[in-house]
Amino acid sequence: MSTPIAIGIDLGGTNLRTAVVDREGRIIVKRSEPVDVHGGPDVVIARIVQTIDALLAEAHLPRSDIGGVGLGTPGPLNLREGVIIQAANLPGWKNVPIRDRLRNALQCPVLLENDANAAAYGEFWKGAGRDGSDMVMLTLGTGVGCGVVLDGRLLHGHFDNAAELGHMIVVVDGLPCACGQRGCLEQYASAAGVARRVMAARGENTVIDSAYVAGLARSGDAVCGRIWGEACLYLAVACVNIQHAYNSAAIVFGGGMSVAGDFLLDGVNDHLRRQRWSLADDLPALRLAELGDDAGVIGAAGLAWCAYAT
Amino acid sequence: MSTPIAIGIDLGGTNLRTAVVDREGRIIVKRSEPVDVHGGPDVVIARIVQTIDALLAEAHLPRSDIGGVGLGTPGPLNLREGVIIQAANLPGWKNVPIRDRLRNALQCPVLLENDANAAAYGEFWKGAGRDGSDMVMLTLGTGVGCGVVLDGRLLHGHFDNAAELGHMIVVVDGLPCACGQRGCLEQYASAAGVARRVMAARGENTVIDSAYVAGLARSGDAVCGRIWGEACLYLAVACVNIQHAYNSAAIVFGGGMSVAGDFLLDGVNDHLRRQRWSLADDLPALRLAELGDDAGVIGAAGLAWCAYAT
Repeated sequence: MSTPIAIGIDLGGTNLRTAVVDREGRIIVKRSEPVDVHGGPDVVIARIVQTIDALLAEAHLPRSDIGGVGLGTPGPLNLREGVIIQAANLPGWKNVPIRDRLRNALQCPVLLENDANAAAYGEFWKGAGRDGSDMVMLTLGTGVGCGVVLDGRLLHGHFDNAAELGHMIVVVDGLPCACGQRGCLEQYASAAGVARRVMAARGENTVIDSAYVAGLARSGDAVCGRIWGEACLYLAVACVNIQHAYNSAAIVFGGGMSVAGDFLLDGVNDHLRRQRWSLADDLPALRLAELGDDAGVIGAAGLAWCAYAT
Repeated sequence: MSTPIAIGIDLGGTNLRTAVVDREGRIIVKRSEPVDVHGGPDVVIARIVQTIDALLAEAHLPRSDIGGVGLGTPGPLNLREGVIIQAANLPGWKNVPIRDRLRNALQCPVLLENDANAAAYGEFWKGAGRDGSDMVMLTLGTGVGCGVVLDGRLLHGHFDNAAELGHMIVVVDGLPCACGQRGCLEQYASAAGVARRVMAARGENTVIDSAYVAGLARSGDAVCGRIWGEACLYLAVACVNIQHAYNSAAIVFGGGMSVAGDFLLDGVNDHLRRQRWSLADDLPALRLAELGDDAGVIGAAGLAWCAYAT
């Protein structure tokens, strides 16, 4: 008798990651490939099916072994209906019933989840949050993606958009954000935001990344030091607000900024010490993500296990 | 055969509110009386028992009709153990196992809850949040008390201190707060905070309240207008952050500031319109609390029903 497997999919604006995952969260086979989302949902769904079949062939598994498929995509999504309402990284995809279309193509159960939530669930299940029952993850990349696990379950909220903490306002009347607000966390503390601020401060067009900024900040560069420091300051404010909002056991940092490791954690902790509240000792532990780019596929597969495993 | 009743208790620093509440959340009899918390837990527990007996006598009900008792107190609390760890408004009360002591005195089940959470649960059950399954309440009084109901249940968090949104930082390096942080929401948007800021701006010692500030702001006074406007601005920031954190259907304002009614709601909404994010139409509805000072006892009784009703 064969053991069922789950498929985890992480569909981004430029990359498709797919993995065959066992019940313990181990990746059996995986693939990361460029995907042309401009071709529209039909082309992408065909590619997903093709990739799954190729991975199953590689692992010598029949399609009938699939217990469930978890699909993480950018949002906003309608989770109950399994629909991508729209997504900045999937141009032209509006009100796409991706869950049902993929289910029809694969003839097996499919669960749709916000990509940041899927990554958070991955870290909660098998990564930096595996020892607890709750956790907040901030993925500091192009924006600030976020997922919140409370009592073992992802928080979705009334409108399915809970845990959009990248759009928490940390500076009143601060930098404009593409979302329509001003002063959003992701303008100051995403990898792209930090790089953008350094480029603007220097008046240069040379494209840099947050690792470059962290490197120069470490070695005493004034502009990079200031902007990196402000990123840490606003992340500390976000951590205080997360502490008071969810009172979670841990906050996990992933994405490009987290490559700086302890330089990031120490920077945030320095500011936190100055903001420490005295009423209770309930500051979440700050940790670095452990699963890297696999968090999304592992989390998506884990959610499929939760939903469909018998 | 008699119908069981629940007792709801709201213990504050100066007042004890007690009510006999039926299964539908209707108050049968209630009492509000001054209480001397400096006398310590023994004196207060004796007073609570005395008050409950008096209320039961008034309603011609025997003690054996009590299905459960809900007790709301300031915190921080250890909810699992039913212990008041400490509370600014209950000086000298440290690590008081109030739940078990009241249970022993009454010989019936007692549930302990944070007072702001109990009030939020009251509004959720029978007040401004009764039509939904989730809600965030901000009680804008001496501080900013808060309770969050998600999927019908109060959010407690890993350390039992979730939903302390009065200590969300809205101004980095802002006004110092007694909690040890700076720039907490309650410095700018609590009834006491608003009054304090106006008094400081005027350099006067005459004690005023937030209703007075709202009245003068309405009639064009510059100082009151500015400080009331800033309260509304920071409440709008808090609402945006609540939207992105919990994505709840509604945010309910209670406490002294909410006496201003539409003047408060309109002020907050004005700022929200300027911060509106474009990714989804998921701003919680802003509402005024409906239960006034009864929210705490109704909520505490409701929680007792949830925990103990058969």
